[in-house]
Amino acid sequence: MPFSTAIAALKSRFGAKLSTAVADRQAHGRDEAGHDGMPPDAVLRVGSTDEVAEAVRMCAAYKMPIIPFGAGTSLEGHICAPKGGLSIDLSGMNRIIELNEGDQDVRVEAGVTRQALNAYLRDKGLFFPVDPGSECTLGGMAATRASGTNAVRYGTMREQVLSLKVVTALGDVIETGTRARKSAAGLDLTHLFIGSEGTLGIITELSLKLHGIPEKLAAGVCRFPSLRAATDTVMATIQMGLPVSRIELLDELSVRAVNTYAKMNHPETPTLFLEFGGTSATVDEQIAIFTDLALSLGGSDIEFADTQEEMNRMWHARHQLYYATRAMGPGKKIVTTDVCVPMSRLGDCMLETRADFEASPLFASMLGHVGDGNFHTIMLADPTSRVEMSVLERLNERMVRRAIAMGGTCTGEHGIGIGKRDFLQWEKGPATTLMRQVKMALDPLGIMNPGKMLPDEDLPGA
Amino acid sequence: MPFSTAIAALKSRFGAKLSTAVADRQAHGRDEAGHDGMPPDAVLRVGSTDEVAEAVRMCAAYKMPIIPFGAGTSLEGHICAPKGGLSIDLSGMNRIIELNEGDQDVRVEAGVTRQALNAYLRDKGLFFPVDPGSECTLGGMAATRASGTNAVRYGTMREQVLSLKVVTALGDVIETGTRARKSAAGLDLTHLFIGSEGTLGIITELSLKLHGIPEKLAAGVCRFPSLRAATDTVMATIQMGLPVSRIELLDELSVRAVNTYAKMNHPETPTLFLEFGGTSATVDEQIAIFTDLALSLGGSDIEFADTQEEMNRMWHARHQLYYATRAMGPGKKIVTTDVCVPMSRLGDCMLETRADFEASPLFASMLGHVGDGNFHTIMLADPTSRVEMSVLERLNERMVRRAIAMGGTCTGEHGIGIGKRDFLQWEKGPATTLMRQVKMALDPLGIMNPGKMLPDEDLPGA
Repeated sequence: MPFSTAIAALKSRFGAKLSTAVADRQAHGRDEAGHDGMPPDAVLRVGSTDEVAEAVRMCAAYKMPIIPFGAGTSLEGHICAPKGGLSIDLSGMNRIIELNEGDQDVRVEAGVTRQALNAYLRDKGLFFPVDPGSECTLGGMAATRASGTNAVRYGTMREQVLSLKVVTALGDVIETGTRARKSAAGLDLTHLFIGSEGTLGIITELSLKLHGIPEKLAAGVCRFPSLRAATDTVMATIQMGLPVSRIELLDELSVRAVNTYAKMNHPETPTLFLEFGGTSATVDEQIAIFTDLALSLGGSDIEFADTQEEMNRMWHARHQLYYATRAMGPGKKIVTTDVCVPMSRLGDCMLETRADFEASPLFASMLGHVGDGNFHTIMLADPTSRVEMSVLERLNERMVRRAIAMGGTCTGEHGIGIGKRDFLQWEKGPATTLMRQVKMALDPLGIMNPGKMLPDEDLPGA
Repeated sequence: MPFSTAIAALKSRFGAKLSTAVADRQAHGRDEAGHDGMPPDAVLRVGSTDEVAEAVRMCAAYKMPIIPFGAGTSLEGHICAPKGGLSIDLSGMNRIIELNEGDQDVRVEAGVTRQALNAYLRDKGLFFPVDPGSECTLGGMAATRASGTNAVRYGTMREQVLSLKVVTALGDVIETGTRARKSAAGLDLTHLFIGSEGTLGIITELSLKLHGIPEKLAAGVCRFPSLRAATDTVMATIQMGLPVSRIELLDELSVRAVNTYAKMNHPETPTLFLEFGGTSATVDEQIAIFTDLALSLGGSDIEFADTQEEMNRMWHARHQLYYATRAMGPGKKIVTTDVCVPMSRLGDCMLETRADFEASPLFASMLGHVGDGNFHTIMLADPTSRVEMSVLERLNERMVRRAIAMGGTCTGEHGIGIGKRDFLQWEKGPATTLMRQVKMALDPLGIMNPGKMLPDEDLPGA
């Protein structure tokens, strides 16, 4: 085994917290999108920042790669171990350290999930808004700059993190910020680590902004005769500055997947899942404005969820869409990818992508956090068919090129990982040189999640 | 002259755009706070990104320091030249390149001022919200992570910049982002350059978010019998999530300064300058909620500005407060400093700071963007009195230590520059090591605004 000396030293220090069992290693090398076959050499289940720091220092001494692991729900191979090494599993660091109700902020360990945090907050009238479609850890969400259905109103992890505790690649412990809401003090290390995908250090604690649960929430669906009518409505809604809480678009195929998976019976036509929040008066005003707009562009009246339970069921169904679509093609390889474009180009980008899909033999659905200009596709292909796999790859590449050409980005929220490293080069060009310089400066040994985000060449440890 | 060869080369390339006139050099070495006596060796007035890149490459060849210059309105010595070098003046790069109304974003050159941008936008129903109290350039505002009275509602430059064009320390040109509203593509170089104070590269263009001018705006003042009553009201307002557009606190001395300077006659008591924005219904609702709250905590009814003109006059007076206070002590040295603390500590921090001031012989007023937990002090001292100057320094240090101890930051919006380098160490501790590593990676020659933000030792060029 390549790192046997390192693993023996870790075993002697950490005992049963270190596992080299095959099942453990495989489970830590396989992500939600099925990137597979790249297990780490060992898994360490840590309980504290000090343990993380000690493990990092030991790995550094042996130049052993480190892959931070939260819930394993990322989609671009972030947690795979293409160069072997140690998976540091932070899911056991799941304490809520300090709630400051007066400041609407909370301090948590990196392994706390967004669901656990919101369950803890429920009776306090507060919530944490960022909600990717899986049960994921807040540390992992910061590391991948995660987003979700609430981003149109509340922003992404980029907007919701006040400060991070980070174990650097050399095993030092730093705090990037404070609990103050703004600061002009020095380089913005908080944002440098948000979205760094474990390539610069390991996030072990987070201070997060919280928000008051709105006095009134109303959710419902609005149906459209065409994708264009739906995207036109979204664009007009955002351009007029209407502060919707959520505005999610599902195409016909996505609605079909939801219907099948969640035993619902929505008509299979492009549909917006909507939520309005605020005081009673503002919610009523928002609904009236939106309804006028949607009707004028060919949409239906909003069909409201009547009860809290029905509302929860609706959003649960939306969050399960990835799994629902996967269920449409058992045995198929599933590839989900996301791009984000300026709002004025959303309709064009989705329509052109749809035309591409219709000309292909694959099942490929579209859905998205369209209020941000962000949409996803979920494509199914037979992994044993070279033709289908190459069609899939081509569709993916064409969508990314299209988004970049429209002034957008190759990923709104899934990240780069293994899968989009070439796309990052297409999008950022010479700016990736600076990313490499920062990476080399903060991780001189090249041990932090190697093989992710940046091309291997030039990097130490490559 | 230390850089005479470099300057001769620049002169031969740039001709009349390069100035070594004493008046020019002095004007470019003196900032709004009167940091003085550190003029650059020459001033280059650039007209394009290509010119900036060429100048940077020439300076790099001669290891000549570079100090980016916008409007010269920063407050912590950012534009001084303690090691000499070339001041690159971007104020001539003042084109508005592209307005995308449908996406509510705009592309500008770095020398466009916030006032010029808003004048351009006025008849389009859009505005750019970040408003420091001076006529400053948007490039300088990004470089110093500027803020202002609208930050409580719209955030700071940190939240309003979509992407930057940057000339790196090696003279390469990069674009940090796209016009997409969110992205998970790679390391966040946009935020790395926002607030980098010219120490990593030179911002030459910006893509900025814009916002619709609210349907209704209402502004007015609310008076309080004590500073505590005012801060309690601010804390309660923010904690209940009331989306005020502006909530600015002026203490008695600040009100007196405004009265004298702007020929107004506000009663000299702690006063909130307020603005509410939104639809007619939401503004009325906000005003009703705020008024109830303020009355219950000892405040007055809101005294509204009746006309747009009166509203403009009120905010103009607020923005002139720095100059107004300076006018209270002709010939005195003026030191303005700012800290930012978690909202729940705002009252304690301001009251303890006030007690310190009252025990001192100096004129020292307090004011601030209190909705963010951010407040300023403006202190006047006789520069020829060693006693007064040392009292001033001690008051400043005690305020910063107090804010940090309360979980806050040594500067909410003014930045580090020359003046707060020790404070940055107090606040960030070992995290400054990472800042140094990033600095050395991106500016290996140490030519980008040396002597600012980070301590000199260890840095190349020191």
